[in-house]
This record gives sequence, structure tokens and C-alpha cells, in this order.
Amino acid sequence: MRKLAFLFATAILPLGAQATPPPSNGIKLPATYKHWQVLGVSHRDDNQSLRVIVGNTTAMTATRKGNTHPWPDGAILGKLVWKDSRHPLWQPAIVPGTLSHIEFMVKDSKKYADTGGWGFARWVGMELKPLDNDGGKPCFECHKAAAKTDFVFTRPAPLP
Amino acid sequence: MRKLAFLFATAILPLGAQATPPPSNGIKLPATYKHWQVLGVSHRDDNQSLRVIVGNTTAMTATRKGNTHPWPDGAILGKLVWKDSRHPLWQPAIVPGTLSHIEFMVKDSKKYADTGGWGFARWVGMELKPLDNDGGKPCFECHKAAAKTDFVFTRPAPLP
Repeated sequence: MRKLAFLFATAILPLGAQATPPPSNGIKLPATYKHWQVLGVSHRDDNQSLRVIVGNTTAMTATRKGNTHPWPDGAILGKLVWKDSRHPLWQPAIVPGTLSHIEFMVKDSKKYADTGGWGFARWVGMELKPLDNDGGKPCFECHKAAAKTDFVFTRPAPLP
Repeated sequence: MRKLAFLFATAILPLGAQATPPPSNGIKLPATYKHWQVLGVSHRDDNQSLRVIVGNTTAMTATRKGNTHPWPDGAILGKLVWKDSRHPLWQPAIVPGTLSHIEFMVKDSKKYADTGGWGFARWVGMELKPLDNDGGKPCFECHKAAAKTDFVFTRPAPLP
């Protein structure tokens, strides 16, 4: 029951001030990310984690207009990642457990020209410990696989 | 490649008019649901489907304030459900495939007193075929398992 109480007490979009952790790779945590709209969802069964992908207004407008080849400067994509847990009342449902990390891709084709035009940032755990990994170069190495979609893996989920 | 083209062409929050299907169980499709904020996420491994749970302003305000025991009248929760697929560039990632259905719980403690104070609605597939199932009584039968959380299974995902 302790865990359930914790989940309720630290709901997404909680009341109160936004946490302001130190920057990651020189990037500040976007202040309004909890209010962004959802772009996609994924579940990784290699590391047992659930993800929601959200976008800022620039990113969502670009998505609606199909203006993502390339994504425009100013677009920010956020990925909110939780470790798997099982819903206590519905066992076939894998639901968010503890927070793993939150991470962001920030498009600035000039500033981040060395990493595909994207800045990469990550904050780990509920304490939001910032990652500093050589300006996100290791992130970019994996994202090169998605070069044909401007280094973005996420494909907007289909809706009518 | 046809499938990928399809996914891009029917992005979440696409440009153009909102689809307006017939009502389900007498409930109209909420006009703005694609703009709602995210409350949670789940993956069901019994029926291989990925889900994003979103809420209208009343629901999200109630979540932030912890005012969900019970949820206030006017709160609407939406669940967007896709069949599983594998990301072609990142095989361990299960991502949205074709749309299964979208469904909503509408809180009106008087109007829906017979089903826990919630109206239940569902539209199936990209054609948004409305479900009519005896006013949502079969939905409510399963939701009785979550009576302690006002018949809502979703627990807001934790964030700092």
C-alpha cells in the first residue's frame, strides 16, 4: 500500500512548483513539459520500460502539418520513461512503476550541427539528476539509425 | 513501406477537421480529445495493445489537486488504444500499429448513477464505429474491480 500511496502523491502534473534541476548537456529542463500533448507511446521489452512521447507546441504544429522532414528549429520532443510494473487489479496490464528518467531532443540546426541538429538532454530518477555525456554525442550515435526521419525514432501514433 | 506511409499520413493530431462519428451509448465523441494532456500509459500483453490515457481539463485539474476520490462531475478520461507493432529501426520497441479503438469515461454522478456515476463510450477503428452496449453496463461490470478508486483503473504516472 505504501507504493500506491506514493503513486497518488506524485501524480503526473502535480500541484506545486516545477522542479528545476541543473542543466543536462547545457540544456535546461523545459518548464512546461508536463502540459505538452502526446505524440506517441512505446514499450521496450529489452529494458522493461514504458514511454510516453510528448511534444512542445512547435513540435505538435509541425506534426499536424507534416512539417517534420526536417523538424523545424524550436521543436522539442520529450520522452517520459518509467520502469514496468503490473497493475494490481488487472494483471495483464503493464503500467508505470518508478520513474526511470525523462529526456528531450531540442532542434537547433545551427547550435547542434555536430549532432544532427539536435541537442540531447536527460534527467534521471525522481531527483532529476542531469546527464552530461559529451554534449549528447553517444545519444546521437544511436539516433543515426533514424537519419531518414531527421534522427527521430518516434512516429506519430495514428488517429482518425 | 505502405504501412509506414500510412502511419505518417494519419498522425495523431492531424491537420483538418475532427471526425464526428455517431454517439456511443448516447455519448458524443469529445471534440478536443486530441489536445488533452496525458495521465498515464499502459501495455496489455494479453491482447497486445498499447494505451495512452488522457484527461480533459476537469480531470487533469482534479488529478493535480488529488481530488479524485471521487472524481468530480465533468471529468472525462480517454483511452487511445493501438495494436502492437515493432519499430522497424529498433526491434525491442513495441510501438503503435493500427488503431484498435478510442474510449471514454464521462463522470456525471446523477445521469450515470446506475453505472457508478460514469458513462462509458467507445469508437472502434479508424472509421470510429460507435459501440452501443446497453448503456455501458458491461464496461461497468469490469470497472467494479476498481471501486476503491471510483471505478477508475488508471493511476497517474509519477513525475517529480
